[in-house]
Amino acid sequence: MAQIKYSPAVKIGFLGGGQLARMMIQEAQNLGLECHVFCASKQDPAAQVTAHWTPGNITDLKALTAFIEKMDFVTFESEFVPALALEKFSGKISEKIFPKPSIMREMQNRKSQKELLVKYQIPTAPFVLVNTPHDLDQAWKDLKGSFVLKTCYGGYDGYGTFFAQKFSDLGKLATTVTNSEQGFIAEKMISFKRELAVIFVRNQSGKTISLPLVESKQEQGACDYIVGPTGHKSFNKIQKRIMKMMSDIGYVGALGIEFFDTGKELLVNELAPRVHNSGHYSQEALKESQFLLHVKAGLDFSLSEPDLLDKAFVMTNLIGSHDKPLQIPAGLEGKIHLYGKTENRPRRKMGHVNYTGSHSKALLSKALKERKLFQA
Amino acid sequence: MAQIKYSPAVKIGFLGGGQLARMMIQEAQNLGLECHVFCASKQDPAAQVTAHWTPGNITDLKALTAFIEKMDFVTFESEFVPALALEKFSGKISEKIFPKPSIMREMQNRKSQKELLVKYQIPTAPFVLVNTPHDLDQAWKDLKGSFVLKTCYGGYDGYGTFFAQKFSDLGKLATTVTNSEQGFIAEKMISFKRELAVIFVRNQSGKTISLPLVESKQEQGACDYIVGPTGHKSFNKIQKRIMKMMSDIGYVGALGIEFFDTGKELLVNELAPRVHNSGHYSQEALKESQFLLHVKAGLDFSLSEPDLLDKAFVMTNLIGSHDKPLQIPAGLEGKIHLYGKTENRPRRKMGHVNYTGSHSKALLSKALKERKLFQA
Repeated sequence: MAQIKYSPAVKIGFLGGGQLARMMIQEAQNLGLECHVFCASKQDPAAQVTAHWTPGNITDLKALTAFIEKMDFVTFESEFVPALALEKFSGKISEKIFPKPSIMREMQNRKSQKELLVKYQIPTAPFVLVNTPHDLDQAWKDLKGSFVLKTCYGGYDGYGTFFAQKFSDLGKLATTVTNSEQGFIAEKMISFKRELAVIFVRNQSGKTISLPLVESKQEQGACDYIVGPTGHKSFNKIQKRIMKMMSDIGYVGALGIEFFDTGKELLVNELAPRVHNSGHYSQEALKESQFLLHVKAGLDFSLSEPDLLDKAFVMTNLIGSHDKPLQIPAGLEGKIHLYGKTENRPRRKMGHVNYTGSHSKALLSKALKERKLFQA
Repeated sequence: MAQIKYSPAVKIGFLGGGQLARMMIQEAQNLGLECHVFCASKQDPAAQVTAHWTPGNITDLKALTAFIEKMDFVTFESEFVPALALEKFSGKISEKIFPKPSIMREMQNRKSQKELLVKYQIPTAPFVLVNTPHDLDQAWKDLKGSFVLKTCYGGYDGYGTFFAQKFSDLGKLATTVTNSEQGFIAEKMISFKRELAVIFVRNQSGKTISLPLVESKQEQGACDYIVGPTGHKSFNKIQKRIMKMMSDIGYVGALGIEFFDTGKELLVNELAPRVHNSGHYSQEALKESQFLLHVKAGLDFSLSEPDLLDKAFVMTNLIGSHDKPLQIPAGLEGKIHLYGKTENRPRRKMGHVNYTGSHSKALLSKALKERKLFQA
């Protein structure tokens, strides 16, 4: 049984003010915790839902340190934190932070993330490192044709991702590589039938759980909608290896994992050391959401795999498109979660809608129909 | 179809900073609304969960008016607001407030609330007005023995309620009546088998829904736990009359109703013109919670009766007992909602825990067992 560290005076700090922090805060408040957010603007989604906002930029180490010192626990909503700096904190401070900064550093970089997967024999697409235009030619040769070029650091939702589909694309990519100050990985382009995703959660005491495997529909590199639960014959084997990896590195919190299902194999596309868009369905479909589980894991509450509350579920993202604000349609059947963003910018994640029911096909058809009405 | 008044710039104000406002705010944030709370302390449960706190006391009409003027919508978490003053607002301002101040005034006073029930032939215990010690003797005669004396204004959770079980109790009550500046009602003491409760919700356009009927276990006049759903042969008839009343008076929002089930009859014990403790189960047991429905009703979203997500549900209140803080037990199966109150004062509502499942008896037994662990 995990040790309970809760008391009403516990302060938990969230680094970053987006929707992921917002939804973690909503759950942490139900645990009676005092929720603090460290982010740039009081208008940020997470800063809207708590009385405790500390203005600051994640790269301002002095302000960041002062914030962390005041907290009992600290977590992230993004892996793009100055992990190298945070790692230098001495024992007391660094113990507050989950997942550990050293893990964030390893996972925030695509090169070391790939190496971690390889080390634990977790299947993933073949890759080569790219630092110079010359490496692109080598990659084309080694990977036997088309590949995806990804920045080692900072890419998300399709940003920082480039495609080499034919040999002549390499010229354009050479410019990208030359103009960048950081390295890339070239990853063999995988033909897949489906994209899958899953959330794992591990607490301080080492209990690890896995949420249902889901199918993720992507548009322009970002999640468009989620349907679940689903299965894959290789998942059990991979699950064990992922849990072994989490245990060995002392991972604490939620870990989002994206897969390619090639029809034969299940290949890990990406690890996200945090709650993840593909897990938002859990707010309505599971007894405990990924946000609650992440916080519980960090405070070392005991964890158990949360029951599925209905047979099937769907989550649709509300993606920004133009300046006209989204309108909640009359009679909406899904459960809406808006993030409080006023500017409806293209590609921006504005909110999501959750559905639960008996048949995923019927749910998806209803969900996509209802989504159209938001822009009406 | 109701008219949709949502836009991301909409400001909704909550008068009062307790747990009811806190839980309404949590739901309103998911609708993307900017949530403001008007209450005395930044440490109040509702003030903790939003960036927009306006300090003020509900009796400070100047501050209250300034607050309301800035909002698009305003609602209450308590019926004990200066309704008489709010009623004097001219059209534009008063239209923002739901339920209407005139309804709050009518319902916050036990005398006019009783008269409203009588007018709509909604069964309720016989009563007489008590303003002087002499009226107590008359009440004993008219009500044929034992009665409950209740202050006309301001009583809740057993506060402001006194019992005349034998004739000699009248002497003690005479002192209470003499020392009070306000009137009382004496209500015939009802022998009941069970206490039941229900939430109705009506939107601006007039659509009215009823949530499931539940059984409410009371301790010292305050809700201890809720089990549901349940039924009563007279409920349909009473439901129609309540809906007629709500329609006639133009009620908007959630209305909590407590009943005595005498074995034969269903008598209304009390109307609470707001979300209600007996409806907290709805956060996990229904597709939409009473808090969400209340906000949607005020903004004139369309309403439909929310699906029951499982066969049975239980809600237990966590009641304060002593100064040692509540501890969340390891492996808690219920879904916890703590209100962020640090002082664990006797009789104070500190939080609640929701359970859903197939069998209410098994759920209740688990729930009561788990509740004991909070004070361990």
